Amino acid sequence: MPTVTPPRGMRDFLPAEKARREHALGLIRGVYRAHGFDEIETPVMEDASRLHAGLGGDNEKLAFAVMKRGLGEADLAAAAASGDALSLADLGLRYDLTVPLARFYASHQAALPPVFRSIQIAPVWRAERPQKGRYRQFVQCDIDIIGEAGPVAELELMTATLDVLAALGLERTVIRLNDRRILAGILGSWGVPEELRERALITIDKLDKIGPDGVAAELAELGVTKEGVADEIVELQRAHWELDRGIVPPPAWLDGEAFADLKALRDALPGGTVEFDPTLVRGMGYYTGTIFEIAHPDFGYSLGGGGRYDGMIGRFLGREVPACGFSIGFERIVDLIAADDASAGRSVVLVHEKDASPEHVLGLKRELVAQGVRVRLEHRVKNFKALLERIEADGFDEFANVRADSTLETLEFRPLGGA
Amino acid sequence: MPTVTPPRGMRDFLPAEKARREHALGLIRGVYRAHGFDEIETPVMEDASRLHAGLGGDNEKLAFAVMKRGLGEADLAAAAASGDALSLADLGLRYDLTVPLARFYASHQAALPPVFRSIQIAPVWRAERPQKGRYRQFVQCDIDIIGEAGPVAELELMTATLDVLAALGLERTVIRLNDRRILAGILGSWGVPEELRERALITIDKLDKIGPDGVAAELAELGVTKEGVADEIVELQRAHWELDRGIVPPPAWLDGEAFADLKALRDALPGGTVEFDPTLVRGMGYYTGTIFEIAHPDFGYSLGGGGRYDGMIGRFLGREVPACGFSIGFERIVDLIAADDASAGRSVVLVHEKDASPEHVLGLKRELVAQGVRVRLEHRVKNFKALLERIEADGFDEFANVRADSTLETLEFRPLGGA
Repeated sequence: MPTVTPPRGMRDFLPAEKARREHALGLIRGVYRAHGFDEIETPVMEDASRLHAGLGGDNEKLAFAVMKRGLGEADLAAAAASGDALSLADLGLRYDLTVPLARFYASHQAALPPVFRSIQIAPVWRAERPQKGRYRQFVQCDIDIIGEAGPVAELELMTATLDVLAALGLERTVIRLNDRRILAGILGSWGVPEELRERALITIDKLDKIGPDGVAAELAELGVTKEGVADEIVELQRAHWELDRGIVPPPAWLDGEAFADLKALRDALPGGTVEFDPTLVRGMGYYTGTIFEIAHPDFGYSLGGGGRYDGMIGRFLGREVPACGFSIGFERIVDLIAADDASAGRSVVLVHEKDASPEHVLGLKRELVAQGVRVRLEHRVKNFKALLERIEADGFDEFANVRADSTLETLEFRPLGGA
Repeated sequence: MPTVTPPRGMRDFLPAEKARREHALGLIRGVYRAHGFDEIETPVMEDASRLHAGLGGDNEKLAFAVMKRGLGEADLAAAAASGDALSLADLGLRYDLTVPLARFYASHQAALPPVFRSIQIAPVWRAERPQKGRYRQFVQCDIDIIGEAGPVAELELMTATLDVLAALGLERTVIRLNDRRILAGILGSWGVPEELRERALITIDKLDKIGPDGVAAELAELGVTKEGVADEIVELQRAHWELDRGIVPPPAWLDGEAFADLKALRDALPGGTVEFDPTLVRGMGYYTGTIFEIAHPDFGYSLGGGGRYDGMIGRFLGREVPACGFSIGFERIVDLIAADDASAGRSVVLVHEKDASPEHVLGLKRELVAQGVRVRLEHRVKNFKALLERIEADGFDEFANVRADSTLETLEFRPLGGA
């Protein structure tokens, strides 16, 4: 027999887990819709040329490639001669939802509102080395606002996201907030030349893993000669909203305009929900302004994030389009939330006794379903106790035995979990 | 600029169409759940060896192949030497939901109920020549009952499917019913030898397209020498439930036991919902007993179908497991049903006047969302009439202009579609 497991790094979902995931996705979808966002869908595959157009950063290397159909000997010989396996692929599985969104927007702009608020809830694929908590197929939940240059975009995204986290019962989350302009000020104060800034940001992004000394050492390797960088990073980590007033004079690196913009965002959101973090980078190179990340005190990793990326969405259009997005790390969040609490109403099991005909049992089932009850049929088995335990574990509330003369009126429903 | 369309044969879904699809899928899911089925999910990719194990019929040839990662020169040279492009692929996109279900069941059987009723609502991919109404990515809605050998499986599947069609507002559908044993009787009466029966069935399956004469001609080519086959097919098409009693004596080809089983199914279902059709074949070779198809008087194609396929699900387990399934042709059905009728409650647009700050507008939006209202923000624009038409078309009910001094109490909501 061949192995029967799913492909490496991918997962099957059994009924309980699937129900839990769909329940969470339904909540998320509902909150986003209430906030005026609209769901769209794109195919799971995109043309290979589009996936490898430089918008995907490091993820481009992780794309699963889909082979051209009807490849002949000449194609294979050409690939062998050039050593270029990807010449045999014309399609690939998407590694994020942002590249497809840019293509979608370029294609359908005329049919969309001037300010378009999209929801994308869909799987993406990355050929990563499988490890705990990392999957090769996983669901992303993205909201994006395209065509809005003002801070109302950031506010709508953060409000909707905070409402989603509340709906999922994830209290105590905070949004860490920063702006690429503030990072530019810090790098400027360290004398990092323009051409090294992207690489310096990648280094700072590793702060959680390698610490201030590690970051300082890597920056020194890059050629940053300023002394005391590690200490400054420790100071940066202590930065707070009162940085620009009171006892401490505003530090030289602080971009006052960007900081004022961040404070305006904070003031428009519920108290205590946003923190300033000048060391927050977010990996992707395409961010141009505000960046944000969801932090929870119990977890060392972020539960989602996003930011403004005005340059990117318009890339396939050939002009700049303001855009801002927020993505929830669904796979991280789904394990933290409570299971679906059977809010779905009454559910019963009809136990098919030997003397009852299939037609008779089915007739009773149909009548109950018509009343809005969820019904499962089970055959009478020898180990009846085990059956009752199983149907209770599967989430059913009651059972009744169906005999040849049973009617809806004479069925005796007994609660599960009792005797 | 590169083209911005989706890959050939695949589709983007804009908000209105996506909402309509999700609404229909939600209804389908809800009815199936009420009937005691449980949803599962498998990855979109399966190991190539499993997709090409002979369970997928002609669809195996249509599978999109996913290339191995990290292919080197030696791999490419070997493929060029052998001419076998598929040697470079280790995964593929599923072309149906039945092969994954067989693998899933073999993998998780111990954790599933003895009679397992599965729902799978998910996309599949086939590299078909694109043509009207045929897509390379499309959604299938399958329900299957595994582990139930008796007719109650067929009854549960058909009842659930009839309820789904009613929930979708598709009146006037009927289920055409047949049994592979009856087809075997017909082929036997024509003297078709055992080894030609599968091919003869494929021919009969084309009856809708090539007519009785075409079928008779193809059968003659296969070596069926019996005369008058075309006339007999015309007779078969007129067959009805009273075939075995009354004026007409039961024909020699009729398998009495199978026919009695079909009649018992009919008697257990609401009157007029099932028709007997001895020429119904269903394409897949794996069916072993009952077969059924959804017909609608307005359409020349079926809206779904299924049957009993006891031999297949257990293939990866190495033993026979009774199984029966019913699949709805979602892409065909979704265009027939009425659009989502905004049963989702009140939805309003707040028009952001120039004197109102983003924070103020957002505060009002948050309060309305908290009351269960769906809210979209729009900027005040010169062509206000066009804006109103657009938001009405997007399904919103009311709008209000937000000024600097607006409060929830002073906002004047006006209905859309009026002045």
